[in-house]
Amino acid sequence: MKAYQLRPGAGVAELALTRIATPQPRPHEVLIKTHAAALNYRDLMYARGNYINLAEAPLVPAGDGAGEIVAVGADVTRFAVGDRVTHSYFESWIDGKPDPYKTAAAFGTHINGTLAEFFVAPQDTLVAIPAHLDYAEAATLSCVGTTAWNTLFSDGGLLPGATVLLQGTGGLSIFTLQVAKAAGLRVIITSSSDAKLARARELGADETINYRTTPEWQDEVLRLTGGRGVDLTVEVGGEDTIARSLTATRMGGVVSVIGGLTGFGGASIEPLALIAGVKRLSGIFVGSRAMLDELSNFIAATKLRPIVDRVFAFDEAPQAYAHLESGKQFGKVVVKVAD
Amino acid sequence: MKAYQLRPGAGVAELALTRIATPQPRPHEVLIKTHAAALNYRDLMYARGNYINLAEAPLVPAGDGAGEIVAVGADVTRFAVGDRVTHSYFESWIDGKPDPYKTAAAFGTHINGTLAEFFVAPQDTLVAIPAHLDYAEAATLSCVGTTAWNTLFSDGGLLPGATVLLQGTGGLSIFTLQVAKAAGLRVIITSSSDAKLARARELGADETINYRTTPEWQDEVLRLTGGRGVDLTVEVGGEDTIARSLTATRMGGVVSVIGGLTGFGGASIEPLALIAGVKRLSGIFVGSRAMLDELSNFIAATKLRPIVDRVFAFDEAPQAYAHLESGKQFGKVVVKVAD
Amino acid sequence: MKAYQLRPGAGVAELALTRIATPQPRPHEVLIKTHAAALNYRDLMYARGNYINLAEAPLVPAGDGAGEIVAVGADVTRFAVGDRVTHSYFESWIDGKPDPYKTAAAFGTHINGTLAEFFVAPQDTLVAIPAHLDYAEAATLSCVGTTAWNTLFSDGGLLPGATVLLQGTGGLSIFTLQVAKAAGLRVIITSSSDAKLARARELGADETINYRTTPEWQDEVLRLTGGRGVDLTVEVGGEDTIARSLTATRMGGVVSVIGGLTGFGGASIEPLALIAGVKRLSGIFVGSRAMLDELSNFIAATKLRPIVDRVFAFDEAPQAYAHLESGKQFGKVVVKVAD
Amino acid sequence: MKAYQLRPGAGVAELALTRIATPQPRPHEVLIKTHAAALNYRDLMYARGNYINLAEAPLVPAGDGAGEIVAVGADVTRFAVGDRVTHSYFESWIDGKPDPYKTAAAFGTHINGTLAEFFVAPQDTLVAIPAHLDYAEAATLSCVGTTAWNTLFSDGGLLPGATVLLQGTGGLSIFTLQVAKAAGLRVIITSSSDAKLARARELGADETINYRTTPEWQDEVLRLTGGRGVDLTVEVGGEDTIARSLTATRMGGVVSVIGGLTGFGGASIEPLALIAGVKRLSGIFVGSRAMLDELSNFIAATKLRPIVDRVFAFDEAPQAYAHLESGKQFGKVVVKVAD
Repeated sequence: MKAYQLRPGAGVAELALTRIATPQPRPHEVLIKTHAAALNYRDLMYARGNYINLAEAPLVPAGDGAGEIVAVGADVTRFAVGDRVTHSYFESWIDGKPDPYKTAAAFGTHINGTLAEFFVAPQDTLVAIPAHLDYAEAATLSCVGTTAWNTLFSDGGLLPGATVLLQGTGGLSIFTLQVAKAAGLRVIITSSSDAKLARARELGADETINYRTTPEWQDEVLRLTGGRGVDLTVEVGGEDTIARSLTATRMGGVVSVIGGLTGFGGASIEPLALIAGVKRLSGIFVGSRAMLDELSNFIAATKLRPIVDRVFAFDEAPQAYAHLESGKQFGKVVVKVAD
Repeated sequence: MKAYQLRPGAGVAELALTRIATPQPRPHEVLIKTHAAALNYRDLMYARGNYINLAEAPLVPAGDGAGEIVAVGADVTRFAVGDRVTHSYFESWIDGKPDPYKTAAAFGTHINGTLAEFFVAPQDTLVAIPAHLDYAEAATLSCVGTTAWNTLFSDGGLLPGATVLLQGTGGLSIFTLQVAKAAGLRVIITSSSDAKLARARELGADETINYRTTPEWQDEVLRLTGGRGVDLTVEVGGEDTIARSLTATRMGGVVSVIGGLTGFGGASIEPLALIAGVKRLSGIFVGSRAMLDELSNFIAATKLRPIVDRVFAFDEAPQAYAHLESGKQFGKVVVKVAD
Repeated sequence: MKAYQLRPGAGVAELALTRIATPQPRPHEVLIKTHAAALNYRDLMYARGNYINLAEAPLVPAGDGAGEIVAVGADVTRFAVGDRVTHSYFESWIDGKPDPYKTAAAFGTHINGTLAEFFVAPQDTLVAIPAHLDYAEAATLSCVGTTAWNTLFSDGGLLPGATVLLQGTGGLSIFTLQVAKAAGLRVIITSSSDAKLARARELGADETINYRTTPEWQDEVLRLTGGRGVDLTVEVGGEDTIARSLTATRMGGVVSVIGGLTGFGGASIEPLALIAGVKRLSGIFVGSRAMLDELSNFIAATKLRPIVDRVFAFDEAPQAYAHLESGKQFGKVVVKVAD
Repeated sequence: MKAYQLRPGAGVAELALTRIATPQPRPHEVLIKTHAAALNYRDLMYARGNYINLAEAPLVPAGDGAGEIVAVGADVTRFAVGDRVTHSYFESWIDGKPDPYKTAAAFGTHINGTLAEFFVAPQDTLVAIPAHLDYAEAATLSCVGTTAWNTLFSDGGLLPGATVLLQGTGGLSIFTLQVAKAAGLRVIITSSSDAKLARARELGADETINYRTTPEWQDEVLRLTGGRGVDLTVEVGGEDTIARSLTATRMGGVVSVIGGLTGFGGASIEPLALIAGVKRLSGIFVGSRAMLDELSNFIAATKLRPIVDRVFAFDEAPQAYAHLESGKQFGKVVVKVAD
């Protein structure tokens, strides 16, 4: 089959379309014909070599994919040939709390990913695609979708009506905005671009803040919440934003620190900001297949369609990486692998 | 002040508009000028004498009300004169889990209610009315609103995307439908009237079942959920519906048995239906002020407006009771006490 | 290998020790040399043919076992040859909430069980045995241990200091008593035998009630809890005890209805008992491997040793079934399969 | 009545025993004859002026007390004259989640405390003292007891069998050790004194680490937990311990940052330590009366007795402060106000 190959740390320039053997499903596994792959910041980190626990050998890169089951191994009972599926981010985090065993292997960084004509996955790792989504949309759910769901509901425990603060208009923030609005939450979102903030408003954002023209944006968040602060802040800014995020969050609230999507900042935190405000800092590392199931039910119930910024052809994967790296996208960057 | 008075069990015919002393707020209490009162089935039960723990003396009946604060007692810091407020169902269930102390007294059945020009309540019992609601709409939240919220989220623990089964188109079912849809849930609703089911569809109901033409409605629910069953059934039917509700509910799901709104049926339940399906039967008794706070935030965030079936004038309260008793309403029955 | 075989519904008299092929581990599976098997009431139900979802073919019966890993299939990373292990009750309920897929197959009723010299299990189904337990003790954990843990903590959500009511002195009640006391709970236990109640007191029971001499035992429970009722009742009595159990349980409390261990009673429940008391009836169906993990950690931390009533030799399995059927045991009935 | 008085920031040397008017209970309040007061580090902070939100006026200092109700105001129904009671740390955090309204006022720092012959408290703020505790023991529960309970169970969500890491042998750590062991948890505790570690072992500590002789104590914690880390670390060390605490805590675990008891360190935290380990940093600010209720039930069920290091006479309060300041105590420092 045709597949991209990349060694960790080799750089995006080394991304090469080549031919490798088509994998075969073993017991409890299925073979999926890839239709679309979505890119995430962690795919850039893999290329740069600054992602965690990387092996030496080259892999099929990219951790998100959607396609159609074309063969099943022995004892597969949850799915059948012809089913449209996407997969969980980690191969073995099916349900419950994370541990090192469950989070040991992710597609595209520790095992073969989705920039290939086919990929293999255990049946327990898969989720059926909601009927109204096409493959490009469905491919965006594994990393960004699961992370958004985990942050808001599984870890965050937010109820409908809660207020959430989002930072920037990258893939995660925009999808979290979409989910939050469809679930009856109130959303405040920041960006350095008024044009992007206008688009966020079209997607339902209740309040927008340009952090370039309002550098003390945490004060504006307090003003917009009657001095109370938001219930949850999705912290993706790194470096020097965590202290501001804590200020912008209410007593008893949560600042979710997201990994797997953005670079890991080297910021510092004053313990007093946690104690006096009874606040919580929560590390989020994508999530489980059970969370992706819940998200999938929610998308089916609400007919939500993830925002895809741009779809690249299979042989344009390097351009897709470059587009992601530019930071200019609004929503997700997708590679179409097959029609 | 002008106020209705009624002895428990005296019957609706004895409902009398009379004059009693205007109450005065003590420390931590406020005086509220009533603008609207909403009726619930339990107000009929009070009149008939079959509500629980009733005293002997006549009271101002009706447990739901909304109005404006016109005076405050000592040490009132949460609210001020001029604030638009509604109140929690129980005088002392502010937060946390229920106990006999917290649930001892409800407005209109154990302490004076809201069919009067003024009523007094502790500051901790009150919630500010979302700005976009008028008093008639706000008056519907105490009993039906809190019950819906508790059932879906506080006790039910539903996530957005869950599927819920509602029975009938009375005040509780219709408000629960509104909340569920605004929170991204999927709703199946039953009624004996196709006309009412059509109105439910206009409010967002995803699936409707006429239980007169489909008496084995639980089978239809299973069909509509791919054989899986709903995540939660709001059981208000009494008598012989609980067994059907358990059938219609998925493994690990919940059947919420609602009190305070409907009559208490004498149905029986087979333990095996609980065990083999890992199901839960949950008694719901309205809820706390903290739940009403969460609902109020949600209504403010989503701009939801509760469906009011009909508003009666203050001197038409007996007709309002009769209208509620007729079972013909779609949504809530409200009495306007003042403009 | 030597193994017992039994067809569902064939009766205990048909239990036959015979020779069948030793199973081999496939990928992700291990082969375990059985050292001990424990019996549960559901094993009698299997023999009688009144357990749920039974197949036609004969199986190796008995759902609980403990032993040593003697061979591993491909891709086994969680365990190694020589490890002492026991297994989860359901082959595929590893973590999270139950569903029909996870609870489809249990050892000894739907797939081969443990009354054989060897058995095979997926690596994800296994839990390491705490070092201080022998195999007979460890064999008691799968069904009774997981059920006790699920009832008290996973589903019941009890905190240390809570009060729990146990019925009778069978294997489940006695193990639940042991766990509850080691976790700082208060325990009230009933029995028809003063001698068994005396033994329960030796194991830490705080209060005991002979339900033969105190037939209105629910009133005695209320007296012992200052009129409040217990936080949770473990309902194993069936028939006519559920109404009494609801009376004995506090407002906001839980009556856990246990399956898989006892017969399924045909009792009926008044909805009003749930509503007015904000009570919950919860069906319990053993539990997941994650619950067994938690129990195993707890047993290691507290050095708890499950009470084994009597250990039978491998060729005495029919006598072990008869002893269980007699109802005379105090604690668990175990068959030693190998030294 | 005789009472100590102290202005915030005036210093312990200004602590003066004087006479002030005996307070009178208003509606919903009771008057308590103080028998014992316990000191906490935050009482030193009050004296030094580095506690939060301090007023100007002098107060009766000390936030913990236990005594007997000698008079009740109007509408008091939860307690009666003669009842032995202790009080919640915050006057208005009765139940549910914290907010600025609930946590606005604490005894001894914002309203009058317990170093006086009498003090007044709302009935909803009080908890009955378990029968087996004397007043000195009961006085230790408000701050340290509630904080320990909140940390382990309300916020921490630990189950019996979990492993917890405690730092030092001050009042909080020792009480948390006692609660944890009586609830079936495993405890690792650190200190710079082998003598204190020996005493901790007598109280049930499973593992002890002298952090002077083992400065890389986080590595020893990992060794003692098979490389996994503890489920929860109670972080009271401040300055440079948080990074070590995060290392010592397992994937998915919690580091609880405690306030109200110790100084607030100025440490910094690397976000990556949270993300890669899916870890949580949780600010703890004592807790609610509902938590104190749960603790009180637990103490009654387990007959636990809090360790009191030393009891000072009423006129020795300055010496009691000095003893606390020395850091030499093992357990709590108490002042006996009356026999």
